[in-house]
Amino acid sequence: MRNFLVEICYDGTRYHGYQYQINALTVQEVVENAVSTILNEQVRISGCSRTDTGVHAKQYFFSVLHNSDISPDGFVRGMNTMLPKDIAVVGCKEVAEDFHARFNSKGKKYVYKIWNGKTRNPFLENRALMYGYPLDIEKLGECANLFIGTHDFTSFCSTASFVEDKTRTVYRIDVKKNGDMVDITFIGEGFLHNMVRIMVGTMIFYNEGKYSLDDIRDMLNAPDRRKAGKTAFAGGLYLEKVYYDEEEIKKEIGE
Amino acid sequence: MRNFLVEICYDGTRYHGYQYQINALTVQEVVENAVSTILNEQVRISGCSRTDTGVHAKQYFFSVLHNSDISPDGFVRGMNTMLPKDIAVVGCKEVAEDFHARFNSKGKKYVYKIWNGKTRNPFLENRALMYGYPLDIEKLGECANLFIGTHDFTSFCSTASFVEDKTRTVYRIDVKKNGDMVDITFIGEGFLHNMVRIMVGTMIFYNEGKYSLDDIRDMLNAPDRRKAGKTAFAGGLYLEKVYYDEEEIKKEIGE
Repeated sequence: MRNFLVEICYDGTRYHGYQYQINALTVQEVVENAVSTILNEQVRISGCSRTDTGVHAKQYFFSVLHNSDISPDGFVRGMNTMLPKDIAVVGCKEVAEDFHARFNSKGKKYVYKIWNGKTRNPFLENRALMYGYPLDIEKLGECANLFIGTHDFTSFCSTASFVEDKTRTVYRIDVKKNGDMVDITFIGEGFLHNMVRIMVGTMIFYNEGKYSLDDIRDMLNAPDRRKAGKTAFAGGLYLEKVYYDEEEIKKEIGE
Repeated sequence: MRNFLVEICYDGTRYHGYQYQINALTVQEVVENAVSTILNEQVRISGCSRTDTGVHAKQYFFSVLHNSDISPDGFVRGMNTMLPKDIAVVGCKEVAEDFHARFNSKGKKYVYKIWNGKTRNPFLENRALMYGYPLDIEKLGECANLFIGTHDFTSFCSTASFVEDKTRTVYRIDVKKNGDMVDITFIGEGFLHNMVRIMVGTMIFYNEGKYSLDDIRDMLNAPDRRKAGKTAFAGGLYLEKVYYDEEEIKKEIGE
């Protein structure tokens, strides 16, 4: 069988997340239907990650095994005539039959966007968290530094998660302010369900003085979801990049 | 009476332009209703410009005469609790009674956004023109240079316009490419109905080889709307800045 690795991007506002659900519109359902039409066979696509309701992806990959003789370029063109305007296929390449968009990924980059202007930004509705109170970039960074490294992130994982091993490694977190926009970038090997959004919610609570740095350390040491901050608004989160090459991660984290 | 000069911004996607219309939702209607509620009297607001259906404003001003004793800050806060999420009030200041948002404006800056990627951008739906063919920034600039200065812009004005004098002065046009995004910035004393969008449509036709530079000169010399290019997509156009101070314009156009 042939195997395609397909790059897409999507605005997640209209979707109940990536993964297929009965009775709710998901990115997987919409994309899988288009793929099956273009390839002229009923296929199942394998996504690189589950994104939540309202979460966006600037870069997302899925792989799909099929029997069609379509060219990767023809596949991209065909897909883009089928898909709704909030999902686009950016590229496609043929890969080895055992390549899997999720299992072969070596890491991911997420960006969380906070609009920190005095008033709402009409252009960022569902695209950023609107947060009008003071944000101290250095304080956010102090909190972020505690997350870097290998930790049991149970306190930073949705209680709805069935994953057993909640140990994850965060390679790098950057907090950058550009005008009224604050971008928090996370690079890690992998992230648990809601993990980035709970880290962001916790950083904001720390900035507000609701926690001390010792409180954050406690969250990491005595894992309990109730100890950490609120899960931040889904619309501020973007899956920014998926790494299939460890060298690329090393370059980006400066190793 | 007191007079407020109010700065707003809006995503124009949902609106049939700025100006009040019977049986169609407009920015003026929505804002005027909110202003009348906050000031507790039926008022008429005076906008700085008419924007078309689907056109956005990063900065827009209106002035409003009223008898309320509300503070400008209180007005901003009140307005932002009333308005829908695609319109925000950014600021408000008290001005002289004879100040008018439109008649006192000395110039405007518009930005036209073209997404020139190979595939559509789901994050720029209704926010930019999606144009997948090659765009030569230098060619766009050659065409733009002919528009700079004082001309009869009849060929670049909607035939639905009732304005008699169609002579306008364009101070500066910049074409900039940043990745796959092309921004064309126009600074002028004032612009006719559809003028920026017709200039952009004409620049794109010139880029495609449909016109020579002499054809563009002809459009400016023998004014006739049928000679110029197509009116470019409304969603790519942003009113970016309104100038009430001539010194500020001089600074921006490098005089």
